[in-house]
Amino acid sequence: MLIAFQGETGAYSEAAGAKYDPSATFLPCPAFEDVFAAVEGGRAECGVLPVENSIGGTIHRNYDLLVQRPLPIVAEIELPVRHSLLALPGTRIQDLKQVYSHPQALAQCERFLRSLTGVEIVASYDTAGSAKMIRQQQLSGVGAIASERAGAVFGLETLRMGVQDQDDNTTRFVVVTREADAAAHIGDRPINKTTIVFSLPNVPGALFKALSVFALREIDVTKIESRPSGRPWEYLFYLDLAIGQHDVRCGRALTHLAEFAPSLKVLGSYPSVVRSAEPVSAPEQEQAQDARMAGGR
Amino acid sequence: MLIAFQGETGAYSEAAGAKYDPSATFLPCPAFEDVFAAVEGGRAECGVLPVENSIGGTIHRNYDLLVQRPLPIVAEIELPVRHSLLALPGTRIQDLKQVYSHPQALAQCERFLRSLTGVEIVASYDTAGSAKMIRQQQLSGVGAIASERAGAVFGLETLRMGVQDQDDNTTRFVVVTREADAAAHIGDRPINKTTIVFSLPNVPGALFKALSVFALREIDVTKIESRPSGRPWEYLFYLDLAIGQHDVRCGRALTHLAEFAPSLKVLGSYPSVVRSAEPVSAPEQEQAQDARMAGGR
Repeated sequence: MLIAFQGETGAYSEAAGAKYDPSATFLPCPAFEDVFAAVEGGRAECGVLPVENSIGGTIHRNYDLLVQRPLPIVAEIELPVRHSLLALPGTRIQDLKQVYSHPQALAQCERFLRSLTGVEIVASYDTAGSAKMIRQQQLSGVGAIASERAGAVFGLETLRMGVQDQDDNTTRFVVVTREADAAAHIGDRPINKTTIVFSLPNVPGALFKALSVFALREIDVTKIESRPSGRPWEYLFYLDLAIGQHDVRCGRALTHLAEFAPSLKVLGSYPSVVRSAEPVSAPEQEQAQDARMAGGR
Repeated sequence: MLIAFQGETGAYSEAAGAKYDPSATFLPCPAFEDVFAAVEGGRAECGVLPVENSIGGTIHRNYDLLVQRPLPIVAEIELPVRHSLLALPGTRIQDLKQVYSHPQALAQCERFLRSLTGVEIVASYDTAGSAKMIRQQQLSGVGAIASERAGAVFGLETLRMGVQDQDDNTTRFVVVTREADAAAHIGDRPINKTTIVFSLPNVPGALFKALSVFALREIDVTKIESRPSGRPWEYLFYLDLAIGQHDVRCGRALTHLAEFAPSLKVLGSYPSVVRSAEPVSAPEQEQAQDARMAGGR
């Protein structure tokens, strides 16, 4: 399976794709739009897109693209964001003169970076790109903040794992594919989650009425977010429902909602992530998997 | 008035502060925590914090800090994010060899940047910092993507205004101050908006029940967002209500909500932004204001 993702080889989006299918190969794309285009045009079988981060929040750009483009969501992936300090093999922390990474990653490791005295902190375009630069230019005395996976891909050594300040930094990704391939992707796993986007006029009680179509049918809402639609006096709502789209209760609720919502789109219905049974959340296993993947390159 | 903000002089947060009080002076802080600390410690009278961006989404980090810290919200500011291409006076677009900016700003101007042939695009720590570097090091043939305000602060010329790909890129900021100073900040403007955070157990219908306390009292909810609380089976909800905290209907609704919400905090009650009467949304006026402010330094 060829999976399109935004970023450089070794990026967190690619790691999310590897969690989805450990035997996949990957197509790096410069922008999120290019991920959609690659899947729509048949160059990749599916695409992996970040939709929310536990610190940074929802990535509206990708919701916009999910609304505009015809690709349904067929899976979700949760990936803990764990940064490592990487350098050429044989480097010790005290040898470092510079550390490169994306500004957001540098900000997430601020406490650790402050503990390094006499080291220049340099912002770069992305995390995996910093690791790549160190390998390609054989930069000694230079470190990168990136994923273990990026270290494995570019043959760098981990000087320190888990250098992020907050441990609960998690990104949620979705997998999109062509409508015709959706059933094959989902296979025989139970479909128990549905993501929808709809608009409502900005009148008191409109949201309450919208939620009643789910509450009255005992359908659990697991995510809700409002956003100005861009049209005056109209709001967009993103909802995740703990039910499959083809469940009769879900069908009735959506028909009911469509009676008064000016627009409504189902972005996908798919098996939810089972949080308690995530084998990859143990760092050792993640590392082992990363090493395997790098070996396969 | 001294206003604390996160970032370098010339940052968008500083521009938001200037929109709040055109005669203010500013205290740049390295991190969001430092903004809270500066206000709590009395070094600044208030702080300006970004809470959501129309493309990037809600900045959960600042909601977390608003929950943890004792500073109430006393105002909100909406600032259109308009990037300009800046350089040393006398530079023409065809003279440029390099363009510096924060990766997020570069991404937001991708279409424009692709139209510049033979120009190297370089990521840097922040937008205003790139403008500062060009001025301090007198870099000819180098451009920065930053705000008009940053250009005015560092004496750079605007080669092109509005180089962002999407025109509806807006960031919403809040102003926080010490509890004792809140009334003085608000003055005699009508308080018609209240921001609250509360938790709910993850049981079907819990959110519907929570929204009923507002719907049954005809209180409009203008923003809603859910987020896993970090505790298993519990969600946090951010709500903006179109009513002042001291309105009797709001008081009753919050008392009602507290009957079943495990936690509830009012982050502030303040005058809402009046969108239709925003004089600063005209680019010319924003420029004029920026020029005035730079002159005042």
